Amino acid sequence: MGYTLTEKIIMKNTGRSSIKAGDLVIVNVDRVMVHDIFAPFVVEKFKEMGFETVWDPNKIVFVYDHLVPTSFIEDFRHHQIGDAFAAAQGIKAVHRADGVCHQLMPELGYVIPGQVTFGTDSHTTTYGAVGAFATGIGYTEMAAIFGTGELWIKVPPTIRFNINGELPEGVFAKDIILTIIGDIGADGATYKAIEFGGSTVKALSVAGRMTLCNMAIEAGAKVGVIEPDEKTFAFSGIDGSDYQYLKSDLDACYEQVFEYDASQFKSVVACPSNVDNIKAVDTVAGTKIDQGFIGSCTNGRLEDLEIAARILNKRKIAPYTKLIVTPASRSIYAEAVKKGFISIFVQAGAIVNPPGCGLCCGRSGGIVSDGETVIATNNRNFLGRMGGPKSEIFLASPATVAAAVLEGQIVDSRKYLNIT
Amino acid sequence: MGYTLTEKIIMKNTGRSSIKAGDLVIVNVDRVMVHDIFAPFVVEKFKEMGFETVWDPNKIVFVYDHLVPTSFIEDFRHHQIGDAFAAAQGIKAVHRADGVCHQLMPELGYVIPGQVTFGTDSHTTTYGAVGAFATGIGYTEMAAIFGTGELWIKVPPTIRFNINGELPEGVFAKDIILTIIGDIGADGATYKAIEFGGSTVKALSVAGRMTLCNMAIEAGAKVGVIEPDEKTFAFSGIDGSDYQYLKSDLDACYEQVFEYDASQFKSVVACPSNVDNIKAVDTVAGTKIDQGFIGSCTNGRLEDLEIAARILNKRKIAPYTKLIVTPASRSIYAEAVKKGFISIFVQAGAIVNPPGCGLCCGRSGGIVSDGETVIATNNRNFLGRMGGPKSEIFLASPATVAAAVLEGQIVDSRKYLNIT
Repeated sequence: MGYTLTEKIIMKNTGRSSIKAGDLVIVNVDRVMVHDIFAPFVVEKFKEMGFETVWDPNKIVFVYDHLVPTSFIEDFRHHQIGDAFAAAQGIKAVHRADGVCHQLMPELGYVIPGQVTFGTDSHTTTYGAVGAFATGIGYTEMAAIFGTGELWIKVPPTIRFNINGELPEGVFAKDIILTIIGDIGADGATYKAIEFGGSTVKALSVAGRMTLCNMAIEAGAKVGVIEPDEKTFAFSGIDGSDYQYLKSDLDACYEQVFEYDASQFKSVVACPSNVDNIKAVDTVAGTKIDQGFIGSCTNGRLEDLEIAARILNKRKIAPYTKLIVTPASRSIYAEAVKKGFISIFVQAGAIVNPPGCGLCCGRSGGIVSDGETVIATNNRNFLGRMGGPKSEIFLASPATVAAAVLEGQIVDSRKYLNIT
Repeated sequence: MGYTLTEKIIMKNTGRSSIKAGDLVIVNVDRVMVHDIFAPFVVEKFKEMGFETVWDPNKIVFVYDHLVPTSFIEDFRHHQIGDAFAAAQGIKAVHRADGVCHQLMPELGYVIPGQVTFGTDSHTTTYGAVGAFATGIGYTEMAAIFGTGELWIKVPPTIRFNINGELPEGVFAKDIILTIIGDIGADGATYKAIEFGGSTVKALSVAGRMTLCNMAIEAGAKVGVIEPDEKTFAFSGIDGSDYQYLKSDLDACYEQVFEYDASQFKSVVACPSNVDNIKAVDTVAGTKIDQGFIGSCTNGRLEDLEIAARILNKRKIAPYTKLIVTPASRSIYAEAVKKGFISIFVQAGAIVNPPGCGLCCGRSGGIVSDGETVIATNNRNFLGRMGGPKSEIFLASPATVAAAVLEGQIVDSRKYLNIT
């Protein structure tokens, strides 16, 4: 009997020659990420546990992204505590307003294929897009890793999603993952590994794959993983020859296998206020929206900004409608300036925020009032996520959001992509 | 006996053939500006006063700048109330996140030479830079103007500042106005008109002149005014031939005249926590700073971003130091993208905010914690202005701020301008 990609990562990490779903194993942590919201709590727990020095300062990354730019007087306390701890422990990787943690970790090579990585944020599953085992944990667990470099996990069973064929024009990775979550439900993969494969996934950029794995957690998954390939190795800047083992065996044991024909995917939205309340754009077209948001660890990458810019180019957002654009990292922002996307957004009437998590988590940068309806590229639409508890959030692809703000209502983006 | 520029504007407006300081006159309002913070209060008062329709919808401008991007759940209420009122009254000039009000009013031609203008913000004095009589009022007065188109004012006496000669390199309009405020004190011009003139003022761009008039209020002045010239007419897009009367007579009656030799100005800062606590940069060099801010209605214009970009080009801000850059308007932002300034800021490690007032007024976009020291290009440094009540604010020119963030301490900007 063969093994899944997830099992292989764990076996390599632990040195075990066999493994099965449900096994409790202790992994050697390759890298951890702590963002600014949790930094003080991790530091406090670390001290409370009696630790004095971290197991390896080179394996710890602090990312200040949720509280930048600071929007409350106490925000900077989090950065000060993180800075003081990092300085005392010799932790050099501290990113201040450089981007959203889940973008930076793969982008800057902190996570590469085959690694076992944890972060104090649920969307840590994103890094599975480069073939890593990556998941979110709480600050107590993180403090324990800081002290020991180890964590126990239960080996998750894997659900495989085979997606083959060509996506229709105007349909994107976001539409795939939303559709899947709609099909299996928000608890459809609780504590399981979701493995994405097939020709459609291979055809996606690493950015698109990150969108898939990012939202694996929205179906409850422990991790979302994709077999690394040449695109991955190029993205991670590594020679792929040592990583050829990172694929599921043909006789791997999956708990379930789903088959999708890519040509059947449509543009969809997750309707208020559940992530698995998925409907085709066509069925909700005409729904009035007050604000659009393009950004976040789900869809704030260059290709996301590019498709939005293509739609917004030489056009103006509708009267009384707002659009907030937040590039996911400093380098994406710089590249979007260079490629002219930022100019297009500014001229269309958008508000362009600096990289960060503020709006997605309802803290700053365009948070919504009760009664407002938002269409957004991020990953959660529960009540109050982006501000007022009586606001409504539709989740969609960047193309669908860009098209919607042009009309002040949900509309098929193909209308603005010259696709008929 | 002749008249001052301020008196001439009022005479023309009221049709009076003579006037003197202290006269109470009723002016015909040419334009008003209401920003988002005060919009609901003006609307409420307007109704409370029994008015039904505004005197002239074409003379009212709403600018949403303090609450963009929205940072509190209720922020959008202000915009909704403004929008509903504007729609009902036929007010077409509603600017959503297009820039800081005091930048937009002259930039978009809402205020031109010779006009009498009021705004619900103290820094309305800025428009004196184009030869208008412009000052800040409360929302009750504004509601009365909405209903009547008139307001009574007491004709202010004028203090004239003659500034002649060439500024030393590395010294800017901001240094002039800070020095003047230091000399006459924060109450040195209470309810007076400050008139700036002389070859140095003539040599300033309209942007630099706006910096002067913007801070006239910081010495308590009712207005700050500068005689319009060819630069002004070009800026305002008007033929100057009808506006030649807009100058003080040679025998105008000034309450006081101050003479400044421009060559004697130095780079200065307003030290915590009074705007008239002015010291030469040299005497406070080495003071540790945590954050820089370049932006606001005082110094967020293209020439401000340009000098900062020149200093920051190919350099990185100091470790643990933050820099927030906020272009003053959408068009300035777009132009700064085009000219490469935004790329320079991003690569230097700055946070680039969308146009707005958030940080200057301590509401969002990088507000400071207690214990932090800020060096900023805006206009107020009283306790708590930019966030925590125990933070400290130094006010300075964009060049001085840019140089400071490179070192994490106050330093003479000439070091980075290749001036020795």
